[in-house]
Amino acid sequence: MDKHTISVLVDNQSGVLVRVASLFSRRGFNIESLAVGATHDKEISRITVLTYCDQRELDQIASQLSKLVCVRAVQVLPPDKSISRELLLIKVKTGSERRTEVMLIATAFRAHILDVARETMTLELTGESSKISALIALMADFGILETMRTGIVALERDAGTIYHTLREE
Amino acid sequence: MDKHTISVLVDNQSGVLVRVASLFSRRGFNIESLAVGATHDKEISRITVLTYCDQRELDQIASQLSKLVCVRAVQVLPPDKSISRELLLIKVKTGSERRTEVMLIATAFRAHILDVARETMTLELTGESSKISALIALMADFGILETMRTGIVALERDAGTIYHTLREE
Repeated sequence: MDKHTISVLVDNQSGVLVRVASLFSRRGFNIESLAVGATHDKEISRITVLTYCDQRELDQIASQLSKLVCVRAVQVLPPDKSISRELLLIKVKTGSERRTEVMLIATAFRAHILDVARETMTLELTGESSKISALIALMADFGILETMRTGIVALERDAGTIYHTLREE
Repeated sequence: MDKHTISVLVDNQSGVLVRVASLFSRRGFNIESLAVGATHDKEISRITVLTYCDQRELDQIASQLSKLVCVRAVQVLPPDKSISRELLLIKVKTGSERRTEVMLIATAFRAHILDVARETMTLELTGESSKISALIALMADFGILETMRTGIVALERDAGTIYHTLREE
């Protein structure tokens, strides 16, 4: 089972996310991460799903997704030809005595400090998943109070786009 | 109808996202953005939902979410006491003649250049939604080929966390 990233253009309507997510859960595939947001066209939203499956299952998912009425385009993103990023918010226990240490690590990771309180600090980090996980592992030594990851979003490298896979109506 | 951000801690299991998203769509609420990702506890995922509703509807949604078996905690994030961020990937048509112009705008926005191809450029921007929208508006003049937004993620400012709302078992 490999990790796969699937990008889907959908109608920006109530219930569409449920239909897309149901397709995964009905087959028992866990969604590792999912992000849905607006696009530059306000009638269209875009969903990025990260899931674990084999190649045959991936083909099935892609084919079934593209048959949904609310789906305009489906693109499976090959890891070697795409750019993938994730955003992390993390709140860490610093006290006053370990604040400097956390700030130096944040600088090394090019993370941004969003909030400093008496006992805690909140950081933002954008990057590949491995970098995100590395910061979380380091911060565990200080005490992680909470985290929120956006889930992966990805685009094809070079000039190609998901619009090349648009369904003919 | 106001914009509200709801954060939910859920079991990391197949089908959970469908149950959470269904609760919104059954009531006809459109999900403006949704992000689901892992937390530092691998049995727990965290979902951030942005939706438009009035205060009474918000209370109902929060109450119904907290009754789902797969939901561990629900937090409604007050805008004035929380930090919210979003990540944008955007591919823009530059040609060779407008590349410098796009690069300068990227620098002004503190966006990162992820990919430069002969005719296109792919940028990454992290920030508040208004900043993301401002870059998209500027890039429309060059020609937007595709965008992917993660949707909003948010944490409470200061030392408070979603774990303060954990359900008693």
